[in-house]
Amino acid sequence: MKNERNDRDKIMLIGEILDHGSGIEYILGVLTSEKHGSLNHVNELAGIGHRVVHGGEKFQSSVLITDDIIQQLEELVSLAPLHNPPNLKGIYAMKSLLPRVPQVAVFDTAFHQTMPEHSYMYALPYSLCKKYGIRRYGFHGSSHRYISARACEILGVDIKTQKIITCHLGNGCSMAAIKYGQSIDTTMGFTPVEGLIMGTRAGDMDLGVLLFLMEKEELSFVSANTLINKHSGMLGISGISSDMREIENESLEGNERALLALDMFAYRIKKYIGAFAAAMNGFDILILTGGIGENGDKIRKNILSNLDYLGIEVDDQANSGTQGKEAVISKPSSKAKIMVVPTNEELIIALDTMKIIS
Amino acid sequence: MKNERNDRDKIMLIGEILDHGSGIEYILGVLTSEKHGSLNHVNELAGIGHRVVHGGEKFQSSVLITDDIIQQLEELVSLAPLHNPPNLKGIYAMKSLLPRVPQVAVFDTAFHQTMPEHSYMYALPYSLCKKYGIRRYGFHGSSHRYISARACEILGVDIKTQKIITCHLGNGCSMAAIKYGQSIDTTMGFTPVEGLIMGTRAGDMDLGVLLFLMEKEELSFVSANTLINKHSGMLGISGISSDMREIENESLEGNERALLALDMFAYRIKKYIGAFAAAMNGFDILILTGGIGENGDKIRKNILSNLDYLGIEVDDQANSGTQGKEAVISKPSSKAKIMVVPTNEELIIALDTMKIIS
Repeated sequence: MKNERNDRDKIMLIGEILDHGSGIEYILGVLTSEKHGSLNHVNELAGIGHRVVHGGEKFQSSVLITDDIIQQLEELVSLAPLHNPPNLKGIYAMKSLLPRVPQVAVFDTAFHQTMPEHSYMYALPYSLCKKYGIRRYGFHGSSHRYISARACEILGVDIKTQKIITCHLGNGCSMAAIKYGQSIDTTMGFTPVEGLIMGTRAGDMDLGVLLFLMEKEELSFVSANTLINKHSGMLGISGISSDMREIENESLEGNERALLALDMFAYRIKKYIGAFAAAMNGFDILILTGGIGENGDKIRKNILSNLDYLGIEVDDQANSGTQGKEAVISKPSSKAKIMVVPTNEELIIALDTMKIIS
Repeated sequence: MKNERNDRDKIMLIGEILDHGSGIEYILGVLTSEKHGSLNHVNELAGIGHRVVHGGEKFQSSVLITDDIIQQLEELVSLAPLHNPPNLKGIYAMKSLLPRVPQVAVFDTAFHQTMPEHSYMYALPYSLCKKYGIRRYGFHGSSHRYISARACEILGVDIKTQKIITCHLGNGCSMAAIKYGQSIDTTMGFTPVEGLIMGTRAGDMDLGVLLFLMEKEELSFVSANTLINKHSGMLGISGISSDMREIENESLEGNERALLALDMFAYRIKKYIGAFAAAMNGFDILILTGGIGENGDKIRKNILSNLDYLGIEVDDQANSGTQGKEAVISKPSSKAKIMVVPTNEELIIALDTMKIIS
């Protein structure tokens, strides 16, 4: 776990944790430890904020966790079978350890609940979509929300007047089209596998390929899910790694599959910049974040090259000099501002929690 | 079958045909019929052109059909199990009926073989793609090729200087990004199910949705293929019809699902206009064709509205007055020319055949 002590030193502790209950106990122990902690006593905790991956259509913003809310979260497990159960375990553990401290759920999906129907519906039989809640939900909502608000703060503009494209490029990658403060489209869909090419996820792909492969390779649902989520993406193309730095290093040695993976990664993002520009009739700000977005200046350059038709002008020096810090990397004459804004989902969770419990 | 007689009258004959051999015999009979025909004798046939759906990576242009070519087409059946076998039956039938007349294959995929690797590869394990020939192939190639060349002819410009976006909107729908005469990207992929929303095909969709539905609804590969190819698209959303005219009529009555289907259809195309603009760093000409592209002026208006950021200005009067004929429907001040060009795949097949046999 990572913690920032009272003296502002940041520490990282690594250990084996066997279940969510003992994990939470460990966290509370570290928080109140004399050597590493930032609290004298857990009683100082005024509230606890949880990141919850899937809020379905029920949650359009963060909420105070009650028994009724827990019941609703249990009902959403079928939509996020891999993510919501551990989120719930964390909530149960905190509830049993600190029953009197209010808890708040902050959803990855909530920010995208403003999407219009034509953005979130799939072209499937309508009744089937309604039966199972199949639609685009989108994820990384706290990140897209944080960086869009923070960019407007830095620029001194009102988010309600701005068209913004946000690119969260980490191990998972997604983009959002944010018009006047509201998400109107995003690349991830019903699951986090849709959209951009990621470390190990395929992103957009012909449905026919999946059926073809399932039949030819006799894949079960589980194997097919593993294929598109764990063995594809940058790892699958490059055959090297899911880590962008390793792929970049190999590309410098002239590895052709590393170069192909980098080209495909940037090209997919470039196409979505174009698509979201069309969705909003242009844009004012483009923001990059996440490990790759914050540090990968060569990748940023690839993505943003040859977009003169949008009036985009990247300041090469500002771009190559920006790693992991807030900066405008476009020239003053650029029609849209291009920015790097390190994301801070924890801050969004803390602020939402504070707001809701007070 | 449709035929144009010597006196230029066009006739259409409807009858039940039991197999490809007798179908071809019937066609030859009508072609030489005194009442309906355009030939005195089949000996007048100098060559026979076939539309072949899938040419894989082997065929980058039309070819004279030899025994060796037939063998290669047989090997491609696994990539297009629904389309290539009937194409081959037509070739075998002609070969047996008119063994001395040269035959030519014109491929739906050939025009897109110029796509760069970063456009046509999927983010799957590389070896799996190579093992099965999995990649974006694209279809409707003869149509995209015809309308892009024809538009340049009409405008009196050299296609080698133009960036063109083509939209083939019929029962099947696809778009292409054509840079300086070469297809550099297209919406259909390994199969014709990817990309735009079509009459009954889903187009782009989260792979996770397909796996979720196959598991929950216990769908076989065949049922899953039927779902995304036959029960989805405009039919699936609207619940009314796969026919755009019926959906438009229902939308006029205020049917909300008809309106949603129309919005989704136009929005998907609008996003690809943006994506292909980004892929080519802008564009000079946008062309619409196919039953919907040639006749659907309301749909064209929906697609092309709110794209001022690209400098597009549609001439509303020219647009609403254009059905099934060649026309420029943008204002003279528009940055890109918007055109309607009725497609003519048969002409491409005839011209390629003539060129190859002479």
